[in-house]
Amino acid sequence: MQIGVVIGTVWATRKDEALAGLKLLIVKPIDLLKPDREIIPLVAADRIGAGVGERVIFVGGSSARSAVRDNLIPVDASVVGIIDDLEVEEG
Amino acid sequence: MQIGVVIGTVWATRKDEALAGLKLLIVKPIDLLKPDREIIPLVAADRIGAGVGERVIFVGGSSARSAVRDNLIPVDASVVGIIDDLEVEEG
Amino acid sequence: MQIGVVIGTVWATRKDEALAGLKLLIVKPIDLLKPDREIIPLVAADRIGAGVGERVIFVGGSSARSAVRDNLIPVDASVVGIIDDLEVEEG
Amino acid sequence: MQIGVVIGTVWATRKDEALAGLKLLIVKPIDLLKPDREIIPLVAADRIGAGVGERVIFVGGSSARSAVRDNLIPVDASVVGIIDDLEVEEG
Amino acid sequence: MQIGVVIGTVWATRKDEALAGLKLLIVKPIDLLKPDREIIPLVAADRIGAGVGERVIFVGGSSARSAVRDNLIPVDASVVGIIDDLEVEEG
Repeated sequence: MQIGVVIGTVWATRKDEALAGLKLLIVKPIDLLKPDREIIPLVAADRIGAGVGERVIFVGGSSARSAVRDNLIPVDASVVGIIDDLEVEEG
Repeated sequence: MQIGVVIGTVWATRKDEALAGLKLLIVKPIDLLKPDREIIPLVAADRIGAGVGERVIFVGGSSARSAVRDNLIPVDASVVGIIDDLEVEEG
Repeated sequence: MQIGVVIGTVWATRKDEALAGLKLLIVKPIDLLKPDREIIPLVAADRIGAGVGERVIFVGGSSARSAVRDNLIPVDASVVGIIDDLEVEEG
Repeated sequence: MQIGVVIGTVWATRKDEALAGLKLLIVKPIDLLKPDREIIPLVAADRIGAGVGERVIFVGGSSARSAVRDNLIPVDASVVGIIDDLEVEEG
Repeated sequence: MQIGVVIGTVWATRKDEALAGLKLLIVKPIDLLKPDREIIPLVAADRIGAGVGERVIFVGGSSARSAVRDNLIPVDASVVGIIDDLEVEEG
């Protein structure tokens, strides 16, 4: 999984009907050790209720479908947690 | 999912028979925070009807097969939405 | 999917028995907008009959197994089309 | 699989219910040949009991679900081994 | 698939029990057109019997599980062939 921050939302009226009702957030991945690294934002499905500015854990690939509980929904990234806290000791 | 802009179309006569009738668009991924970033274009299947110049959401990996509703069609990227609007607040 | 050019062939006698009889091409991905970009070549299975110098569409990930019509064959890249023509309008 | 070092832990109270009870470690991938290379850390599920500072092998993609023994748990990275020793002869 | 050279072996006593008895090699991917490119080594399962110094073809993602003939073994890279010869004509 990766850590990111929610920076926005995207809307599409003409879309795959299987995506109907699914919230699509724009998430910017974060490099915990180099916060200035500029990583390209992506679009993630969200069933958890994350809001703009919150740090989240998101999952990619086929596991993003497990997160939306329907293997037929065409998503490849899903928010799976809103981060309360994290502890990092650089090695 | 990723955000991109449709920049073209590709044609192949000699191809996997499972791709027959499927429209193949050339999509350039967009970095919303650094629009000048030059990202390599890819080929995505399209069942939504996206046209050149439109901004789209596309899905990658095995979920691209969910988007074409046939797990035997060998695609790894599919357009799943045409973007109406997006809101980004950089963190 | 990605666009590439076939630049060679690779042979292996000692190999996974499920790969027996499958042609393995060396394909160099192409960046349509920056043709000079040097992208690392990969090995793709080919059932279409692509030859050296031809531009092809190839698929990656689990969909490469769909392209060889056998989910037990361990491939992660397969040629799925030989390009006749493509049209690109840079945005 | 990739080699990494455990550098921390992440906690999320609001999360996908399928992740309940699963330990989520922060792992920094290591380049064995260029130890100074700065690679973005990721979050991996852990059922092995790895601790901060230990070098681990982790698996990505759908195989991370095999590692947690439940195909419905939405993870895309899992620790699968704690490294005792490794031998590298640079070619 | 990708081309690489075997540069070592890794051992783990505490590991996912499904990996028991599986040889884990350290493989450095090779860029055939730019041999000096420094690519991060990875860990691949090996059932073919590849040795240090040999050039191999390896497969990534879910297809690595096909290569070990058990969809429950959590691997995401497997050696599938030892290269006898390859021919490259740069385009």
